[in-house]
Amino acid sequence: RIAEMAKLTQLIDNEVFRAYATYATIVLLKMMLMSFITAYFRISRKAFANPEDMPASKGENAKKVLRTDPDVERVRRNHLNDLENIVPFFGVGLLYALSGPELSTALLHFRIFAGARILHTIAYLTPLPQPSRGLCWGVGYMVTISMAYQVLKAA
Amino acid sequence: RIAEMAKLTQLIDNEVFRAYATYATIVLLKMMLMSFITAYFRISRKAFANPEDMPASKGENAKKVLRTDPDVERVRRNHLNDLENIVPFFGVGLLYALSGPELSTALLHFRIFAGARILHTIAYLTPLPQPSRGLCWGVGYMVTISMAYQVLKAA
Amino acid sequence: RIAEMAKLTQLIDNEVFRAYATYATIVLLKMMLMSFITAYFRISRKAFANPEDMPASKGENAKKVLRTDPDVERVRRNHLNDLENIVPFFGVGLLYALSGPELSTALLHFRIFAGARILHTIAYLTPLPQPSRGLCWGVGYMVTISMAYQVLKAA
Repeated sequence: RIAEMAKLTQLIDNEVFRAYATYATIVLLKMMLMSFITAYFRISRKAFANPEDMPASKGENAKKVLRTDPDVERVRRNHLNDLENIVPFFGVGLLYALSGPELSTALLHFRIFAGARILHTIAYLTPLPQPSRGLCWGVGYMVTISMAYQVLKAA
Repeated sequence: RIAEMAKLTQLIDNEVFRAYATYATIVLLKMMLMSFITAYFRISRKAFANPEDMPASKGENAKKVLRTDPDVERVRRNHLNDLENIVPFFGVGLLYALSGPELSTALLHFRIFAGARILHTIAYLTPLPQPSRGLCWGVGYMVTISMAYQVLKAA
Repeated sequence: RIAEMAKLTQLIDNEVFRAYATYATIVLLKMMLMSFITAYFRISRKAFANPEDMPASKGENAKKVLRTDPDVERVRRNHLNDLENIVPFFGVGLLYALSGPELSTALLHFRIFAGARILHTIAYLTPLPQPSRGLCWGVGYMVTISMAYQVLKAA
């Protein structure tokens, strides 16, 4: 068992894999943060999706808070965009980290992606004028494409 | 080849990784079940999203079933909530399982998460009065945060 | 460090894992393609979700392009369906690839899934009459269930 553990620990001790673990966790935590932002806007905008989520209120008011709100929908689109982009990064990045890239090249990929996705959320929620959000999305997208190319070349 | 296979098999033979594989598969299967529940509600409530999905019917009736339905939308929100929470669990959990945690601690994390997400679905679809669904969501969320903290500390 | 790298490289050198890496990357790239198709339809149908995304236009026209469009919504449902099905394939498939299956059996699973999901997108966007899309979905679903069964049996 000790020998087995030691072998597994080698994976997390590998510098590229450790860098991947750090940045993958950071972007997944960033994505999880969207749930809190959605809850904040649902409560402050009084716009709920489920009857049972509404704060106890009497009669007519109850119906008024079962509605969509532009700010809530914006956060939800941001959250879905994270899923659409962070899921491929996680998957392709894991395979890329296992394909034996140079540490400096790998770090460049992971850091640019994490930075681009954090800026993407700021651009989406402020909102900043386009093409700021589009550029952040595109940079993250290209990082994943670049890693996918490396994986397919190695595999 | 035999030696290679043997090395890979060590990963699935490691007790923590085996526990991760079991519970990750269980929650992914639970998430996949949502597709069937959506199909069931779409058919029983006669509420379809695509014209080509509608059962063959004549003239006016066809238009009537191309609509949204509160029960279908509830299942779809539940499915999306699964994606938003089970994806981070899968990703962070994989890195956590490779960071060499104690078996008992790891099992505690995986079992609480799987239990919380199964209860979350029951609370969402019944629906049970709040805060039951909110609590199930929060417990699963905290498990993932706890694993993310361990990964960042190890990496 | 060299020895560590060598150990990691063994993972990508393993034939089953290399096949998994190839097909997982292909289906993740296919999913990423949906973002481009959504952008294409948003621009050609002039249907945007965010005020800041609208092409500079004067007065009344601006409001007209902040709307939903049936073709855009169809692509978005296709993208979400990819997330709902490709995420479980990626997760369960990774654990399956590590559970030591026969190369020929594993290749059969990966190829059928990738083919089914590519045909699913063609059936969704054409759109082809049902049950073509339903069958493609079901075939991909059964492949993931089959791999999940193998993982649970091994773990």
